Amino acid sequence: MLYLVGVGLSYKDVSPRAMDALLLCDGIHIDYHTSVVDGKTLELVESETGIKPTALERRQFEDDAAKLVRQASASNVAVLFGGDPLVATTHKILFIEAKRQSVKVETIHSVSAISVAIGESGLDFYRFGPVCTIASWSEHYKPTSFYETIASNATQGSHSLVLLDFDRRGHSMDLGSAIRILEEAERQHGKGIINEETQMIIMHSITQDGERKILTTLGAAKKLALPEGPTLLILPGRTTDIERECMAAMLGGV
Amino acid sequence: MLYLVGVGLSYKDVSPRAMDALLLCDGIHIDYHTSVVDGKTLELVESETGIKPTALERRQFEDDAAKLVRQASASNVAVLFGGDPLVATTHKILFIEAKRQSVKVETIHSVSAISVAIGESGLDFYRFGPVCTIASWSEHYKPTSFYETIASNATQGSHSLVLLDFDRRGHSMDLGSAIRILEEAERQHGKGIINEETQMIIMHSITQDGERKILTTLGAAKKLALPEGPTLLILPGRTTDIERECMAAMLGGV
Repeated sequence: MLYLVGVGLSYKDVSPRAMDALLLCDGIHIDYHTSVVDGKTLELVESETGIKPTALERRQFEDDAAKLVRQASASNVAVLFGGDPLVATTHKILFIEAKRQSVKVETIHSVSAISVAIGESGLDFYRFGPVCTIASWSEHYKPTSFYETIASNATQGSHSLVLLDFDRRGHSMDLGSAIRILEEAERQHGKGIINEETQMIIMHSITQDGERKILTTLGAAKKLALPEGPTLLILPGRTTDIERECMAAMLGGV
Repeated sequence: MLYLVGVGLSYKDVSPRAMDALLLCDGIHIDYHTSVVDGKTLELVESETGIKPTALERRQFEDDAAKLVRQASASNVAVLFGGDPLVATTHKILFIEAKRQSVKVETIHSVSAISVAIGESGLDFYRFGPVCTIASWSEHYKPTSFYETIASNATQGSHSLVLLDFDRRGHSMDLGSAIRILEEAERQHGKGIINEETQMIIMHSITQDGERKILTTLGAAKKLALPEGPTLLILPGRTTDIERECMAAMLGGV
């Protein structure tokens, strides 16, 4: 049996359903590529199960899904995901592979950073357009498809939830890098949606110690020095009176 | 202190963070208007805390937010929400009122039915447009704004997640009623997006006993007899090869 176990955003989110499954397992892996798994969560899992969770590389995830599923055909194997599993296509590849090998898969759901960020923003859930991710740039790969999503949402007056990429140690892209990429995409595409006055909600380490929920502008956000921690951005579209009232009650300033 | 406590979709989703907060409370209310709270969850909460949770009516929620917050200024009060709190504006009204009265509010997040439904559908998270809800119709109130959202998503090739309204006992609208309203909206607006061949994913009692995850057409869905239980619909837009492969691996037929 293969268990895809969501462990939420903090060790206090690990549900009885998740722990029950982990206690049945012979091996526990961690997905650091598409999610952040809290250090305290790993300590909790190790102390409760006696198994030390080991990190899976992206390569292993996408290319060696067959191997992981084979392992799960003979024993109980879990993969831990920060937040709620099945958001990324890489997770679903495991379903396809398991079906091919006739191995059972069970998903244990947990707190989703996306749902939390939308809820805590004070903005109306129904007024968000499609979600996008700012991927890390390298010398020869500088994707800007997120810009098209944000621009299309802005045209409709919809809000944009912008996820930030993770590095292979499970660390979120920092705010400064995200802003530089947003500005560079604006220079390339020039639709006038990203500038110093662009309104921005920053959700940093939400539900964890040191959480920050900030409503500010891109210009002011540049001067913010946040410690390392999972970060999401929201670029509000047109806002209603009640949304503005909720944002004022639920978010802080810089 | 006012605690807004998400209890997820099943009693096994109640996290240590949620239970820690409930154990501090002197009174526990239930939101049945915007969410479903599992009967076993209520039994668990009562047996652990010794407090019998009481139902809040919509009127009390929206009109008497001030009273609820006043109660929370002198003691610890919790409101239980099925799924993840803060999705509905009614929940956020409590923040505004609490800020007015300088009463502290804490939200305990949990498994979101929306995140679960999107993840379990096999469809790409990034390709969902704005979410909508089919509200219950009465003789003089027959809202069809959901149809505009579905039509706009369909034009973009985006997927539509369609939530179904709850009655005041916390029961989800049944599939037959939802289909009748979809068809009536099609007759009124006539954009040709709803017909017997419309592809439809039905998520019924997901993560609970008796869960059904079905990929079918609207015509075939009419013949389905599902027991009472929380239900969500997804109307896929344009699908990619990998999405079709994931749907085939993750969903059942009728």
